[in-house]
Amino acid sequence: VFFAVVFIFPRCQCPTHSHTYSQGNTSMAVSNIRYGAGVTKEVGMDLQNMGAKNVCLMTDKNLSKLPPVQVAMDSLVKNGIPFTVYDNVRVEPTDASFMEAIEFAQKGAFDAYVAVGGGSTMDTCKAANLYASSPHSDFLDYVSAPIGKGKPVSVPLKPLIAVPTTSGTGSETTGVAIFDYEPLKVKIGITSRAIKPTLGLIDPLHTLHMPAQVVANSGFDVLCHALESYTTLPYHLRSPCPSNPITRPAYQGSNPISDIWAIHALRIVAKYLKRAVRNPDDLEARSHMHLASAFAGIGFGNAGVHLCHGMSYPISGLVKTYKAKDYNVDHPLVSPHFISPQPHGLSVVLTSPAVFTFTAQMFPERHLETAEILGADTRTARIQDAGLVLADTLRKFLFDLDVDDGLAAVGYSKADIPALVKGTLPQERVTKLAPRPQSEEDLAALFEASMKLY
Amino acid sequence: VFFAVVFIFPRCQCPTHSHTYSQGNTSMAVSNIRYGAGVTKEVGMDLQNMGAKNVCLMTDKNLSKLPPVQVAMDSLVKNGIPFTVYDNVRVEPTDASFMEAIEFAQKGAFDAYVAVGGGSTMDTCKAANLYASSPHSDFLDYVSAPIGKGKPVSVPLKPLIAVPTTSGTGSETTGVAIFDYEPLKVKIGITSRAIKPTLGLIDPLHTLHMPAQVVANSGFDVLCHALESYTTLPYHLRSPCPSNPITRPAYQGSNPISDIWAIHALRIVAKYLKRAVRNPDDLEARSHMHLASAFAGIGFGNAGVHLCHGMSYPISGLVKTYKAKDYNVDHPLVSPHFISPQPHGLSVVLTSPAVFTFTAQMFPERHLETAEILGADTRTARIQDAGLVLADTLRKFLFDLDVDDGLAAVGYSKADIPALVKGTLPQERVTKLAPRPQSEEDLAALFEASMKLY
Repeated sequence: VFFAVVFIFPRCQCPTHSHTYSQGNTSMAVSNIRYGAGVTKEVGMDLQNMGAKNVCLMTDKNLSKLPPVQVAMDSLVKNGIPFTVYDNVRVEPTDASFMEAIEFAQKGAFDAYVAVGGGSTMDTCKAANLYASSPHSDFLDYVSAPIGKGKPVSVPLKPLIAVPTTSGTGSETTGVAIFDYEPLKVKIGITSRAIKPTLGLIDPLHTLHMPAQVVANSGFDVLCHALESYTTLPYHLRSPCPSNPITRPAYQGSNPISDIWAIHALRIVAKYLKRAVRNPDDLEARSHMHLASAFAGIGFGNAGVHLCHGMSYPISGLVKTYKAKDYNVDHPLVSPHFISPQPHGLSVVLTSPAVFTFTAQMFPERHLETAEILGADTRTARIQDAGLVLADTLRKFLFDLDVDDGLAAVGYSKADIPALVKGTLPQERVTKLAPRPQSEEDLAALFEASMKLY
Repeated sequence: VFFAVVFIFPRCQCPTHSHTYSQGNTSMAVSNIRYGAGVTKEVGMDLQNMGAKNVCLMTDKNLSKLPPVQVAMDSLVKNGIPFTVYDNVRVEPTDASFMEAIEFAQKGAFDAYVAVGGGSTMDTCKAANLYASSPHSDFLDYVSAPIGKGKPVSVPLKPLIAVPTTSGTGSETTGVAIFDYEPLKVKIGITSRAIKPTLGLIDPLHTLHMPAQVVANSGFDVLCHALESYTTLPYHLRSPCPSNPITRPAYQGSNPISDIWAIHALRIVAKYLKRAVRNPDDLEARSHMHLASAFAGIGFGNAGVHLCHGMSYPISGLVKTYKAKDYNVDHPLVSPHFISPQPHGLSVVLTSPAVFTFTAQMFPERHLETAEILGADTRTARIQDAGLVLADTLRKFLFDLDVDDGLAAVGYSKADIPALVKGTLPQERVTKLAPRPQSEEDLAALFEASMKLY
């Protein structure tokens, strides 16, 4: 069976509420996207159609000299759109780098934004648009709880057109903006449908120059977006249960709508990721991965992610320190568009065999189904082995793509586990969406099981 | 192979343009939808969140006393939203009935709309919102060419929340409003992304009281939306090729995004339609069909439909006259919410075996793939038989559901064919999206082959 949507007419499972159906619904909030080789050339026309007269084009220093930005700027010039470039986006943004972009946006009083880059650029642009549109807000007002206040956004934002140049983040379709909150040394985010880009321009031409490792690592992000969103707690089992639609989170748990996107993105990853990594000229494969990134973004942007992402943040954060020491790489990174010392996608995927072994107790059918899509022969698999089957399939997939052999291979040892667990705890925003609750011991065991993969 | 997306890096095939890639992109414009039993109860909160203070609730006379409307009104009252009911929607609307609703909307100066009903109500509400927001336009300005002027919509519209009560039209997700244009006796439409509802509330509770025949006939509409949109001319083969995104039609041909929705809706139809028809208490099946209707709507709303729909309009139009004579049923119909003398879905599906036999010359793989989803064993099928395989599969599917044995069974004879062909010609808006061009002789042969199905 290809597809099983089983949660219909759910009753609210929230222990603190007696109402029925309060949680028994699910929303889809999807950005408009446009796909095609060369669509970036149309951005000027889109802005003209929107009546924009004072546009902010955000990017990072390295990209600002490369074709994706040049093509966008040419289109703005050709269509007579006045614009200002902000190219000071920090790759792996921080609260400080967000603030700087916000200040720039506030002073500029822009009527539209264009973000050309990877997740860092799109996320920074979302934050700049949000706070410039809400000048009396404190920075923490819209940051997710418990660190921020998680206030719902009720101010109208300006149009934002996102042009992704990597195939992983899916940020062009989501209402999420992630950054390092330096006072507490944790990755956190702003999550609201209101910051979703107005339009995503999915232009496969931008994928042509990505080195193999970037394609692989961003592809792993797509893989985990799909697997995690498909196995999150179903929407009607999540609590609390806000009665007003406006206060429901964007990350609402798996649902019949996000499932479609997750599964479809996973099929593309299964079919095209290896080809896209191995052959930079395989335009067909790279184009599909560029679309898969957006598709998985629509999926997880409406369902959420869970443990692989929650545990990845301390993995990136701590390794970043290690590597910075080892390789004497200071910020800004060398060629941040393409190379990052501990790529997000790698941090995410290294724990995936352990995570899905752990989560498969819940919804084992979904775990088997995804294993089959990734190439496993599941005809004779026992349902109680679903987690192991998926984990083995993932290990083989990662081995074929020459991925480092677990956390040990990227510089961790057992001694780091307490710090990794501690770094995961503030990620409750996503870890609470895992299909099984996790104790600190569970998290420690997951990190330990991820030290070595093969 | 489950899924084949093959059109990547297309070059424009338009013979009159020399540019490259002008057509090589595809957009997705999707309404937000919210799904769940009881979501209609939230409409008042949604309107409050939007700041609405003067709402128009549109429905038809029969529905106005039934639970879907009552639940919506209760929610408006409970949330203190002032509203006016317009319950004079005509089932199978006409230019005159649209005009009446438009006039009502203009006088009311509403700041938001709620449409509770089937396609007729949602379409009427879209038209009312559009023309009330554009008071200096002539009615034909926004009507599709060649009958109307097909002008792009550049005025801002008011929010419209659509609450479908049938599982077929998908109108809650599309930018389409269809009506009978009485001066020329043809079905035509307004098609623009701008009239797409702001939010669709997909509430399965509204499907509980549908009689079997209504479930079947609206399900056939879903079936044909999925099959037709999956087999329309691919987006990069369509012409003309407008260079500005705003002038590109909503019906843009099949594309990697609409394909996902079409195939998924088809899988639901294959799995649940028979159950939904046979057992009114099968809430799971009826819920899935209610979602499938929206999913297929997103698919065809972005890709288009072709011959089954194009040929259905004269079928409904002429039979309507026959039946009105035979049964002495005058407008307004008896219980138009549930019973229509020649349901749209039936008119659409009766020609489907003939149509897909004809179209399978192009994209035979897609025809075989859909046959397999509908239950055919295609392992040994020859690709050149794709059309016949799909046609046989459809015949069996329709026979199982006790569908009338072709156009002859609903009152047509060979003598009617010239009139049916003549009635199809103005439907160029959709017929031009068929994967093969059709001569008048082709259309006549398709009608003739549809006289008897089994």
